[in-house]
Amino acid sequence: MSEAVWRVLSERGFAGLTLRAVAAEMGASTGLLTHYFPNKKALIAHALDVADERTEGRARRVPSDEGLAALRAALLDVLPLTPGAAVMNRVWVGSWDGSLGDPDLADRERRRYDRWRARLCVHVAAARDRGELPASADVDDTVATVAAFTHGLVVQALFDPDRFPPDRQRTLLDDFLNALRTR
Amino acid sequence: MSEAVWRVLSERGFAGLTLRAVAAEMGASTGLLTHYFPNKKALIAHALDVADERTEGRARRVPSDEGLAALRAALLDVLPLTPGAAVMNRVWVGSWDGSLGDPDLADRERRRYDRWRARLCVHVAAARDRGELPASADVDDTVATVAAFTHGLVVQALFDPDRFPPDRQRTLLDDFLNALRTR
Repeated sequence: MSEAVWRVLSERGFAGLTLRAVAAEMGASTGLLTHYFPNKKALIAHALDVADERTEGRARRVPSDEGLAALRAALLDVLPLTPGAAVMNRVWVGSWDGSLGDPDLADRERRRYDRWRARLCVHVAAARDRGELPASADVDDTVATVAAFTHGLVVQALFDPDRFPPDRQRTLLDDFLNALRTR
Repeated sequence: MSEAVWRVLSERGFAGLTLRAVAAEMGASTGLLTHYFPNKKALIAHALDVADERTEGRARRVPSDEGLAALRAALLDVLPLTPGAAVMNRVWVGSWDGSLGDPDLADRERRRYDRWRARLCVHVAAARDRGELPASADVDDTVATVAAFTHGLVVQALFDPDRFPPDRQRTLLDDFLNALRTR
């Protein structure tokens, strides 16, 4: 079932996520699906669980060093540099419409952002301690800026993969991190 | 009708945009609406037209100067610093799910991004000519980075307005622009 949900999400997004579409992917009846998902919100919640599992379970880079190098690796793990990473991002960006329209789902996404920023925080704090970032840099603000740049680049790359091929995404990330660096 | 569509979008997003919801907002019958919108895509296309009109028609800052000051003003015009700007952003972010799932709508959004970046390009090029940005800065790359930071901050602020009040959004923008500045 999770596989069918993921296929529907990756092709049609949350707008195309219906019991009927998932049933068709499974070769099952819509009636069977209503047993698991009494309403649309239950289906969306399951879809977000599937997306969370896939995101958590994906292969990640092992950074060669701490600080900025580790931050760079963590951000490269997010960017749509491969078809799989593009699908993952397409699903998350697609989830924002429904999440912004539902208080529970919005809270869930807000907490997801909190966890992501907390993970980045470790790298930013280490980078500052190592002198790679200015001692005057506010860690929380730097993390918010880095997260902003990364997700904003994700969206542009999803809509215009020709203009934002993987090489350019990497160059933009490196130039951005260099701009933050201590000089 | 545009007003009803906008109210539905701002409260429930594209996930909640149905003929029935728009008809209810108008106090009209769903049957009347099907006369204007033969299918869901026609309704979405109209919703995007409404969003475009509202975005184009909004009041904008008149920058005190060219270059970085004008770039800053253009980006402040985008950020969700007021309830009205938050609604506008909520609608655009919400449109991405449906746009990513439909080639025509994806193309429309890609061209919208092109136009936005072209407008920012003027300010970035002027900032470089004035020496506010390094002579070595690539204008297209800088524009993509600036657009990325701004939209990524929009999304974080929509999900967590308490953590990203207007003052903090302005501070983050100013610190970000300062990091790009010639030193």
